[in-house]
Amino acid sequence: MAEDRSQRGAEILRHIHSGWGAPNVLGPLEEIAPDLKNMVRDFAFGEIYSRPGLDLKSRQLVTVAALAAMHNAPVELKAHLFGALKLGWKKEELVEALMQIALYAGFPAAVSALMIAKEVFAEYDQRSDRGGVHASP
Amino acid sequence: MAEDRSQRGAEILRHIHSGWGAPNVLGPLEEIAPDLKNMVRDFAFGEIYSRPGLDLKSRQLVTVAALAAMHNAPVELKAHLFGALKLGWKKEELVEALMQIALYAGFPAAVSALMIAKEVFAEYDQRSDRGGVHASP
Amino acid sequence: MAEDRSQRGAEILRHIHSGWGAPNVLGPLEEIAPDLKNMVRDFAFGEIYSRPGLDLKSRQLVTVAALAAMHNAPVELKAHLFGALKLGWKKEELVEALMQIALYAGFPAAVSALMIAKEVFAEYDQRSDRGGVHASP
Amino acid sequence: MAEDRSQRGAEILRHIHSGWGAPNVLGPLEEIAPDLKNMVRDFAFGEIYSRPGLDLKSRQLVTVAALAAMHNAPVELKAHLFGALKLGWKKEELVEALMQIALYAGFPAAVSALMIAKEVFAEYDQRSDRGGVHASP
Amino acid sequence: MAEDRSQRGAEILRHIHSGWGAPNVLGPLEEIAPDLKNMVRDFAFGEIYSRPGLDLKSRQLVTVAALAAMHNAPVELKAHLFGALKLGWKKEELVEALMQIALYAGFPAAVSALMIAKEVFAEYDQRSDRGGVHASP
Amino acid sequence: MAEDRSQRGAEILRHIHSGWGAPNVLGPLEEIAPDLKNMVRDFAFGEIYSRPGLDLKSRQLVTVAALAAMHNAPVELKAHLFGALKLGWKKEELVEALMQIALYAGFPAAVSALMIAKEVFAEYDQRSDRGGVHASP
Repeated sequence: MAEDRSQRGAEILRHIHSGWGAPNVLGPLEEIAPDLKNMVRDFAFGEIYSRPGLDLKSRQLVTVAALAAMHNAPVELKAHLFGALKLGWKKEELVEALMQIALYAGFPAAVSALMIAKEVFAEYDQRSDRGGVHASP
Repeated sequence: MAEDRSQRGAEILRHIHSGWGAPNVLGPLEEIAPDLKNMVRDFAFGEIYSRPGLDLKSRQLVTVAALAAMHNAPVELKAHLFGALKLGWKKEELVEALMQIALYAGFPAAVSALMIAKEVFAEYDQRSDRGGVHASP
Repeated sequence: MAEDRSQRGAEILRHIHSGWGAPNVLGPLEEIAPDLKNMVRDFAFGEIYSRPGLDLKSRQLVTVAALAAMHNAPVELKAHLFGALKLGWKKEELVEALMQIALYAGFPAAVSALMIAKEVFAEYDQRSDRGGVHASP
Repeated sequence: MAEDRSQRGAEILRHIHSGWGAPNVLGPLEEIAPDLKNMVRDFAFGEIYSRPGLDLKSRQLVTVAALAAMHNAPVELKAHLFGALKLGWKKEELVEALMQIALYAGFPAAVSALMIAKEVFAEYDQRSDRGGVHASP
Repeated sequence: MAEDRSQRGAEILRHIHSGWGAPNVLGPLEEIAPDLKNMVRDFAFGEIYSRPGLDLKSRQLVTVAALAAMHNAPVELKAHLFGALKLGWKKEELVEALMQIALYAGFPAAVSALMIAKEVFAEYDQRSDRGGVHASP
Repeated sequence: MAEDRSQRGAEILRHIHSGWGAPNVLGPLEEIAPDLKNMVRDFAFGEIYSRPGLDLKSRQLVTVAALAAMHNAPVELKAHLFGALKLGWKKEELVEALMQIALYAGFPAAVSALMIAKEVFAEYDQRSDRGGVHASP
């Protein structure tokens, strides 16, 4: 069962984050705290994201909204916006979700999140042109 | 156009929040800051929630996730969980969304949000039994 | 000089907070952490509030805005709204300041702060009717 | 291995939190989100608190400091202050730790935390008088 | 009336932020979320800042205090410190306001805000030397 | 007595932070707010850190945990991680403390803190090789 969750977590992680989050957020943890890296895979993705009660696409919106509202985790927000595009959210939908954050966390939180989205959209398009994003194994 | 957004905002507000949020969150503003109450209707609901780029049900999930992650607005979270049920989110889905908040804002944020959800679900069921929730005009 | 700051702090503290904050926020500290209570008097009021570069009335607005935006210190916000009235801010001005918080910390922060202001204004009026507020030595 | 972490988590949880946190924070989760309750046991206590690199008493101080600084989780702070006494921290040491929070999270955060500590110390003494705290199995 | 608030907002925005905030904070929004940019002009400046109940100079102090206390919006704080100088706040007064933030949000929040103020003051002086700041149309 | 606290504060500050924090966090304050710099020395270190009720090494852990959980003060966290090594905390212990933050403030807070720790450990080792860290008077 412990192996199961590791495998399940690795699959979801690869599915959502092989394009940006895995190499850029989790990779740098390898040297300093490899066990935390494994916990993200096993617990966050293997035990939470893999639960059946809510579809993965909706889960990704929850994460994007949470990180944008908290307004202190730009690298994770970047990773999860990449993931959101990967899971089928349209750019326009994500822009709308981030604009709405202004109501609950203030305009600066929404503006910051949209600046990150701008960066993500540009990188995503560039990779798509080269076939890079969809080529994730 | 200014009247339009007031009307549009009032409709969406009634549709989502006539059951709990309008009387319990906005009502008490009437005496101290009636203009802020109007701004919530006109700007928040009339200009943001009414935008076409993201469906209302997804917007409600964004709000629930943002408020749960911020972990400082229990009354608004209660109102928006009522709204989420009203818009068709299932209890199980909302529980999953709030559990996931633990990953990004910590376990205490998720636990608090779930305690509020427990309260909301109980009130919602009670009202539904009496036909109270769905009877909102 | 150490005695000076204690005396200076005590005077400002009495001037602003004898009506509500001193008995309700600092009083309860006496038993558990009397030294922290003294630090609030000596450092916060004796070393910061007493500095000449910014007038006391403006300082009070800074504090009200900071506490409203942080959205996690309702008791202190209550105390400082009492203090703001004491220092001459009009109710209408305080309502405006708190409404503006919505732009930077979100609507829930503004709504919470205004609910506290409502409470403060009612207590303040009641005391004024009995001569209670202005009678602080 | 999955069973191991559950058992290990349950032991640590009982050791630290049987007096207050388990019944008051985790208990109410049973009905709404039993799996989150299990995750706290298995992941938080079975996978994190049980790690050998840092002694349990120091871990408890980390938690108390984190919750006091975040200033939005009064129930969890209460639970962990009970736990800190249970693990051997002296009241005076905890008061000092919470006073120090004023430097990093502001005076209101420290004052709130000390008000909670006051409550915890009183309950703890009362139980100790009746032998209640140390009798946890 | 809708046009009125746009015009009113544009005027206040130009008056306070033509020097730094408009090109550096709002400009980059144009491409990704032009409607949010317009909402800042129409709602934030046209509906909130333009209200008569509190003078513009005091409003600017509220914003500076809120952003410094929240400690997560360095770009907006920079913009609003420029705006505060533009509206007549003296450097010394702003330094005092930011030092006071240490009491409510902790020393790190005050230190960060003062580092941003240092940058703003230097840029402001340089522009003033070249007549740049006051020449805003 | 006022001189006493300045002297006491300067000693503790030198003992913990001469290696990194004093030149990198407090140094830059000299020009913009020299009095705040002195308050950190006199109040934070001379009045709080110097109190006898909790040992300095435990105090440092409190600070590291608080700053990691708040997740908005990377420069101060860097300074205090240097200080923690200086006071005898082992790298492994600090990694464990920061991993534990994930439970209370979320994974992104823990990941950010560990990235800062990685930087601190590398710089610390390099200086130790050159005898730089232990040579602080």
